[in-house]
Amino acid sequence: MKIYRANIIYAPTPDKLEIIPHGYIAVRSSGIIQGIYKEKPEQTDWRQVVDFGDKLLIPAFNDLHVHAPQYRNMGLALDLELLPWLNTYTFPEEAKYANPEYAQKMYRRFVHELWMQGTMRSAVFGTMHSESTRILADLFVQAGMGSYVGLVGMNRNSPDNLQNTTEYVLEGLEMLRNHLDKHGNNGLVKPIITPRFIPSCTPEMLKALGDYAAKTGLPVQSHLSENRSEIAWVAELEPESTCYGDAYNRYGLFGQTPTLMAHCCYTDGEELELMKRNGVYVVHCPMSNSNLSSGIAPIRKFLEQGIKVTLGTDISAGHNLSMLRAMQYAIQVSKLRYAESRGATRFLSLSEVLYLATKAGGEFFGKVGSFEQGYEFDALVIDDTYLNAFDYTLEQRLERYIYLGDDRDIKRRFCRGVELTEPVW
Amino acid sequence: MKIYRANIIYAPTPDKLEIIPHGYIAVRSSGIIQGIYKEKPEQTDWRQVVDFGDKLLIPAFNDLHVHAPQYRNMGLALDLELLPWLNTYTFPEEAKYANPEYAQKMYRRFVHELWMQGTMRSAVFGTMHSESTRILADLFVQAGMGSYVGLVGMNRNSPDNLQNTTEYVLEGLEMLRNHLDKHGNNGLVKPIITPRFIPSCTPEMLKALGDYAAKTGLPVQSHLSENRSEIAWVAELEPESTCYGDAYNRYGLFGQTPTLMAHCCYTDGEELELMKRNGVYVVHCPMSNSNLSSGIAPIRKFLEQGIKVTLGTDISAGHNLSMLRAMQYAIQVSKLRYAESRGATRFLSLSEVLYLATKAGGEFFGKVGSFEQGYEFDALVIDDTYLNAFDYTLEQRLERYIYLGDDRDIKRRFCRGVELTEPVW
Repeated sequence: MKIYRANIIYAPTPDKLEIIPHGYIAVRSSGIIQGIYKEKPEQTDWRQVVDFGDKLLIPAFNDLHVHAPQYRNMGLALDLELLPWLNTYTFPEEAKYANPEYAQKMYRRFVHELWMQGTMRSAVFGTMHSESTRILADLFVQAGMGSYVGLVGMNRNSPDNLQNTTEYVLEGLEMLRNHLDKHGNNGLVKPIITPRFIPSCTPEMLKALGDYAAKTGLPVQSHLSENRSEIAWVAELEPESTCYGDAYNRYGLFGQTPTLMAHCCYTDGEELELMKRNGVYVVHCPMSNSNLSSGIAPIRKFLEQGIKVTLGTDISAGHNLSMLRAMQYAIQVSKLRYAESRGATRFLSLSEVLYLATKAGGEFFGKVGSFEQGYEFDALVIDDTYLNAFDYTLEQRLERYIYLGDDRDIKRRFCRGVELTEPVW
Repeated sequence: MKIYRANIIYAPTPDKLEIIPHGYIAVRSSGIIQGIYKEKPEQTDWRQVVDFGDKLLIPAFNDLHVHAPQYRNMGLALDLELLPWLNTYTFPEEAKYANPEYAQKMYRRFVHELWMQGTMRSAVFGTMHSESTRILADLFVQAGMGSYVGLVGMNRNSPDNLQNTTEYVLEGLEMLRNHLDKHGNNGLVKPIITPRFIPSCTPEMLKALGDYAAKTGLPVQSHLSENRSEIAWVAELEPESTCYGDAYNRYGLFGQTPTLMAHCCYTDGEELELMKRNGVYVVHCPMSNSNLSSGIAPIRKFLEQGIKVTLGTDISAGHNLSMLRAMQYAIQVSKLRYAESRGATRFLSLSEVLYLATKAGGEFFGKVGSFEQGYEFDALVIDDTYLNAFDYTLEQRLERYIYLGDDRDIKRRFCRGVELTEPVW
């Protein structure tokens, strides 16, 4: 048992922050939280207590949509909309991952930066290459971080050197699953079924992946209703589907197992109902949706409808791997919706975005993202001294950290109870 | 004469970056740029050359709208729209500046952070307090940075302890003008006439400030058409004016001398024509306009109409004092307009926002913000080593710095030819 003492802040529900000044968290050797206390629990020896002084202790971040092989393009190439952006910038970069040495070099940097930014769990797109994707998974294992790692399925409407086959993807998934069953750090790193998006996958591949999901229970991630041109294209490609979401649904890739759908900028009507009925998660990617001129997703409507919403950076369409930025943009674009609707749509609050960045996304990994009893202890120790020069409350300190902080402020990182030191490869 | 060698990047026009790999800039002892060269100028002794190696050399940033006394609230209190935000959070903080000791303490931090973020010139709102505003001006002088410093006029619709009188403001302005004539670091720091906005100033104060502008030629700064409720309020307060801008114009505060108007989210029709006719500058504050749910200013339309557009952080409605962020948001909100208009409104490019953040705003201070011959040498040396691990072009390095960089990357800062070391008070 370890006991940590700090200014504890977390969001057990979207509507309210839980704040415990100089509180205590007891963590079992299994990494599970035993309890959280305002005063030092009785029968605790002071020698057991790790005291972080006046620092903040918050749940670590969970990034539910991020493209590892686009790391080189982060902060670049943001002058096009989705479909030309894919062809011009993204596919050529991803094709380089046919070379496992390139993958090793770049993925090391990517995983290192996720660590740096305090993102302890992620749902990640690799590329269509089986070996490179296994390398990515192994790096997460080495770093001690949690991740769902996706071997991307794509066999149409992309460059010849960036298409695989249904057989290749099924075989690769099966290999990855067996590999991570043994070497996945006790389930911290797992595979996820990852059709790129409807335009990249033939019906045959989609059906096979849906069948594989049904057989294995593995979760699914993909893209949905990001951009108007993309939606129109999907309608052409899948004339029998009633909406974009229905196209996934018809292949068993829409909530039949836990499913993440990134973007959903234009999800409404039947698609929205289907997501709700099937318990499909929205991954809100406000940075990306601004950078690629996709639009603003109707997050308030999703929340009001009881749809599960999580948050993602979506690099390199998102320009920054920090979940702090994702939180800022989530609030800000919701305010632009609020302005546009003349106040009819309430914007997101600070506690809501902290909830999205921690507990809402953490749910996909189990009991993760909160400091309640029974949760896995994923946490960040934040030293905001330079931001805290005046008389701020703890809530204000959190707000200033979210709006003004960066990787410099994160002093210690924990994933499932284990402190993660800087990955050195 | 000094000669600097580095990878030089600047934006002499909005449509194109000028990039000189390992180029040279010769700067006279007056701080004026003698010339810019691809090769070492003949007859130059190598001993004259200061070589920044592979670093980037770019023009320093100019922030054309920023509220110094709101520094404490930066990154905070962003859950309201403009008018309740002013009353709830901003006015109580500004009232504290009645105490010159408080002003001294806080303004030191503010000016220090402007330095840190590489903003060498600014147009700044102080408070309604004469002495505190003089203190702010003196700090800019001590730091060696350029600034237009505004004693704020406000004598209605604000708390009793935050109203001054026309006489007080005129006298304070005159004192500040005389003081800075002598002690303004050769014109680097100057006063600017600053009615807060129409709702805060009686017609009598507005008229007196307009007369003072005409008499002295001093420039003017204020707020315009930021938010729908504010615009409706101005229409009530100034029933004889045909638009918000016309209210300023009737008092001689709308381009009769050089004039900065922040926001202009809803400027159109007659107001737009008037700004164009009078050469009034728009200060685009996209961070602020998102954070206070104000809306998105029609910057592309302004540019197409030949209206002068500059950029501001507008803290603390803007949450960050970095002009990098202002540039990012300027592009991103223009992309959301692009999405909304289904592609009819072209979004801002990288060279356009660099131009806005450097030369467009620099014009307000003279020949500032470019590396052309005859310009004052305001510059930043950027070490982007950690962002430049792969094979990026110089343009890509600039783009990555704008999207991913921060104060850590700025290694040296120059204002009017003088290298500015960290202000230590």
